[in-house]
Amino acid sequence: MMIVIATDTRQRMVRSAALLFREQGYSGTGFRDVIEHSGAPRGSIYHHFPGGKAELAAATAEWAGGVVERQIARAGRDGDPIAVLRGFVAGWREVLESSDFRAGCPIVAVAVESEAGPEAVAAAGHAFGRWQDLIAGTLRDAGVGRAEARRLATLVVAAIEGAIVLSRATRDLRPLRDVGRELEATLRAALPADDS
Amino acid sequence: MMIVIATDTRQRMVRSAALLFREQGYSGTGFRDVIEHSGAPRGSIYHHFPGGKAELAAATAEWAGGVVERQIARAGRDGDPIAVLRGFVAGWREVLESSDFRAGCPIVAVAVESEAGPEAVAAAGHAFGRWQDLIAGTLRDAGVGRAEARRLATLVVAAIEGAIVLSRATRDLRPLRDVGRELEATLRAALPADDS
Repeated sequence: MMIVIATDTRQRMVRSAALLFREQGYSGTGFRDVIEHSGAPRGSIYHHFPGGKAELAAATAEWAGGVVERQIARAGRDGDPIAVLRGFVAGWREVLESSDFRAGCPIVAVAVESEAGPEAVAAAGHAFGRWQDLIAGTLRDAGVGRAEARRLATLVVAAIEGAIVLSRATRDLRPLRDVGRELEATLRAALPADDS
Repeated sequence: MMIVIATDTRQRMVRSAALLFREQGYSGTGFRDVIEHSGAPRGSIYHHFPGGKAELAAATAEWAGGVVERQIARAGRDGDPIAVLRGFVAGWREVLESSDFRAGCPIVAVAVESEAGPEAVAAAGHAFGRWQDLIAGTLRDAGVGRAEARRLATLVVAAIEGAIVLSRATRDLRPLRDVGRELEATLRAALPADDS
């Protein structure tokens, strides 16, 4: 029972860190902010994260990466790469809109700050890689060649992540919308002609 | 004479901030780091930036945006959109390689941290907008329709910025290289057929 409670506290801290990182970045988020946001007891930090904030950052990148990964998998359950792209864009649009453009991607937040430490940056890289693998898999299943599917999946993840940054900076959904539209045209052009 | 020296100190601080932001982000970079890196006298901060670090961040985004803008303009002097894309990719590859993947884009660093303040975020948005305008102009001059040129330019800036983040996170140039290759194919497909 103790373990369940402890695990829950750790999980709440990770979730809070993800929500805070995506607005304020890694260095801009103090342990105190995470404690306050999650309602975790003050002593929880070094109990759950003996490696300190860098360990929290790595756990956060891993967790947030998994959340997005499951969203991509759900959007791709019918095997349609365009549905995956649209689901990916819609998920980030929701983040931008619901935060009034204050929040972006917590994985990017960790990846762009060297102080987050090598483990957290590696966890960020792993998350990006998993998303690309899922998207590439959907493209391959739809008939795109292996190498092209991999490159297109990289383009999708990179372009959407970049578009989130552009939309935040301009407080405008247009970059995300335009990039989504161009990516959709690019994927359609790469897919084998529909026989139906 | 005093003014020249003062301007030079301010300029060195902005340049140092850009170099530090691109590795450590906005919150991860203290005023003390900027003073140390630039060799500016300790009192320079509030003399040159009475608005504090947020004002420094805005000046940094504006300056770094201008540096990249001139690179884009140079790469596009022959009116070839592919040359512009290649120049843009090559410039960021140099940043990644020379920093052993520790440095990315200082404009992104400012744009993803709400604590950098609205002026700095707006300066980041302005920089992205200027890059897109330049790229879109080259595409229009090469015969691409206005709306499509604007969307493609947004795609280029977003995808390259995202690819820089992916390459940093994976410590691998492949994301940047693959995205550059896919963007080149996309631009070639959008350009009118060559008559030569």
